[in-house]
Amino acid sequence: MNNDTICAISTASGVGGIAVIRVSGKDAIEKVNKIFVPKKQEFDFLNQEANTVAFGSIVAQNGETIDEVLVAVFRAPHSFTGEDTVEISCHGSIFIQQQILKLLLEQGCALAQAGEFSQRAFLNGKMDLSQAEAVADLIASTSAASHRMALNQMRGNFSSELSRLREKLLNFVSLIELELDFNEEDVQFADRAELQKMAVEIEEKISKLADSFNLGNVLKNGIPVALVGETNVGKSTLLNLLLNEEKAIVSDIHGTTRDVIEDTININGIMFRFIDTAGIRDTKDKIENLGIERTYRKIEQASIILWLIDCTQISEHIEWLTERIAKRAEGKKIILVFNKIDKVNEEECKIIENLFSQFDAEHIYISAKKRINTDKLEKALVKAAQIPELQTDDIVISNIRHYEALTNAQIAIDRVIAGLTRNLSGDFLSQDIRECMHYLGEITGEISTDEVLGRIFERFCIGK
Amino acid sequence: MNNDTICAISTASGVGGIAVIRVSGKDAIEKVNKIFVPKKQEFDFLNQEANTVAFGSIVAQNGETIDEVLVAVFRAPHSFTGEDTVEISCHGSIFIQQQILKLLLEQGCALAQAGEFSQRAFLNGKMDLSQAEAVADLIASTSAASHRMALNQMRGNFSSELSRLREKLLNFVSLIELELDFNEEDVQFADRAELQKMAVEIEEKISKLADSFNLGNVLKNGIPVALVGETNVGKSTLLNLLLNEEKAIVSDIHGTTRDVIEDTININGIMFRFIDTAGIRDTKDKIENLGIERTYRKIEQASIILWLIDCTQISEHIEWLTERIAKRAEGKKIILVFNKIDKVNEEECKIIENLFSQFDAEHIYISAKKRINTDKLEKALVKAAQIPELQTDDIVISNIRHYEALTNAQIAIDRVIAGLTRNLSGDFLSQDIRECMHYLGEITGEISTDEVLGRIFERFCIGK
Repeated sequence: MNNDTICAISTASGVGGIAVIRVSGKDAIEKVNKIFVPKKQEFDFLNQEANTVAFGSIVAQNGETIDEVLVAVFRAPHSFTGEDTVEISCHGSIFIQQQILKLLLEQGCALAQAGEFSQRAFLNGKMDLSQAEAVADLIASTSAASHRMALNQMRGNFSSELSRLREKLLNFVSLIELELDFNEEDVQFADRAELQKMAVEIEEKISKLADSFNLGNVLKNGIPVALVGETNVGKSTLLNLLLNEEKAIVSDIHGTTRDVIEDTININGIMFRFIDTAGIRDTKDKIENLGIERTYRKIEQASIILWLIDCTQISEHIEWLTERIAKRAEGKKIILVFNKIDKVNEEECKIIENLFSQFDAEHIYISAKKRINTDKLEKALVKAAQIPELQTDDIVISNIRHYEALTNAQIAIDRVIAGLTRNLSGDFLSQDIRECMHYLGEITGEISTDEVLGRIFERFCIGK
Repeated sequence: MNNDTICAISTASGVGGIAVIRVSGKDAIEKVNKIFVPKKQEFDFLNQEANTVAFGSIVAQNGETIDEVLVAVFRAPHSFTGEDTVEISCHGSIFIQQQILKLLLEQGCALAQAGEFSQRAFLNGKMDLSQAEAVADLIASTSAASHRMALNQMRGNFSSELSRLREKLLNFVSLIELELDFNEEDVQFADRAELQKMAVEIEEKISKLADSFNLGNVLKNGIPVALVGETNVGKSTLLNLLLNEEKAIVSDIHGTTRDVIEDTININGIMFRFIDTAGIRDTKDKIENLGIERTYRKIEQASIILWLIDCTQISEHIEWLTERIAKRAEGKKIILVFNKIDKVNEEECKIIENLFSQFDAEHIYISAKKRINTDKLEKALVKAAQIPELQTDDIVISNIRHYEALTNAQIAIDRVIAGLTRNLSGDFLSQDIRECMHYLGEITGEISTDEVLGRIFERFCIGK
């Protein structure tokens, strides 16, 4: 870590009512003092009490006032970074934000790298590496589930679990290494059955954590849903309907752009990611084409197949279609959505339904156009997602780096178990246990290199 | 003003390291207390000292933690709005921002209307109307000049000048109305010459303020520049060159989108707005066409004509072009920019220059492609802009509402002067003076209606 005092705009980029510029480092207060003139003349900013806010102006060296601001002072170690920190709340003009940054740079502050505040928090022992990573995940979280995972991780649930595991491993390895010291005497401090039990316990915990990645990954990136169906059955209408309802909530407050939430839908806090199957739409005339097969193969990426059917007409290709979908439906949830039900009677509907009797699927009857039963469809999606509701203390990992480290730790502990079974000598066991500990330590950053840290923090946003 | 406690996200929309949610109103602290759990258990948030920051969690009614946050407390009247105010600094995820807003709404807070915080600051006497409007201008400011104008106005320079004017007018009208009271006795408390002098003084001050609008408007919206020239002389290259240098500064820190700064260039803190003359580009073959005339008429909107000429070839249309531009150049600064100078010798250059001898124009020699002398061009633009450097205390108005009010005030005071000359009776004069005061009062909001206020504040951003 360098000793620079760093600064960055910490709020979202662009124009806002206010913006916050964060300054952190041992000279943070001194450097801000050079550009901050308190409203109350007698006020001594250098000695401003920690965790208090003062009103005043940012003034350039030439005497020009840049803005009227609030400055909050935090003193080491009681700040996010663990260093002296000043947060300047200015008016949210881009021009003002730039000017204040410029003045800070003139005072010798360095522009913070992406994630540098979090990195300092880590290096100063305010949080471990997995917690720092959780800060980035928290900021990027877009659904209740991804938010809860990140928050749990940031608050240290995962870290505590890892530290309990490491303690057990340490205890384990001590027993074995103690044996090694008394090697000559052929002493056994713990019987092998006991050691075996310990190793299995540890393995179970590690594998439970590693297994949670499947869920975590889905929660973070969305549950893949393939919306399939022939042309003109109402796929776009339905997708827009689902999207719009969500977008209304989002853009009401934020003006979120279409890009960001395109094709992901948040229902009851669970994110669904719609896989593009647009190719199906335009290919009626070349229906045996290889290109379509390629499109259909996309269905294999999905966990849920949302199959939209027009109740008012039986397509000539329906057999062809069912055959192809059936081929790829294994292990996936299928939801059959019968659209345009306002235009058919019950009997007509039954005839259509019978065509799909081979599928073990939920049947939903909707009218996308008239917005009939779209709530039922949403419920069916949530049910098909089979997402267990996360409890406040559940540990679910969603970071591939953690997953890889856990997998490696699992391989090492598996070797220990195998070694115990084969009655391997203590020094081999000890090496594998230490390897297992090493991988767990990578997650929290107890074991880390500058390079690894660099890679992790460069993906953060600037200002955090 | 309603008595609701209002809340809004005050930072720019989107994802950032942190975001700030502002809560203002008499129950602000009480309402935040329902969702804020301080880190230190014994901490009493309801009695948190003004201007201090506390660390803790935002927790939903069901016990779920939403985020770890900092809350700053400000107590009436020592806050921006003049009301009790809490600022919640949370992690900048859109999801978290939404959730916290949702919890506040559940506690009975209302979502703040655009500009409602500033409106409350005005209604609570924290600032007058022109100052509140300056807050919005300050947030929107994109150049040093527009920033300084807005800041001066926010800090009350304009307000003080207006209040001095109103005082003079009040003094003036008192003298005249005193005469009216003693009407029967035909007393004159002030001789007419003295009154005339006062009226002229007031008129001069008002007209000086009104006249500053020309400058203010240009500073706020940019100096209109028409970049003209034939096809392939390098207009796009030059524009991109100028734009990119500016954009580099802006996007370096902010990722400002192209949209925002498209065709405006900030040089030395002065904004230049390039008028689209793209139509000239593609019309070589239909050169006598009426459409071109329409394009050329756009030049009339410009203050500066930046005329780009290819040194390496004399166009057959040059006479036609010079004639048309000459017709529209009156009162405008012309800068003749000779491009591709790296490809010609001095003599060749002279021949080209002679074609333009009829114009009283600055000559600049550049190579847009090789970036030769673009700095000289920028200097020439700044010089041609003839913008006096604003001093910290200069009052320059840029708001059309203020301009209209000043113009009306000016008309009223002009009537007073005319009336004095024609020796009109005191009651007529008094009426006009009071009208003059009325218009000045409209600017600061001493005289205002809900409708006017509504119109003013609805153009603010939400959260300010």
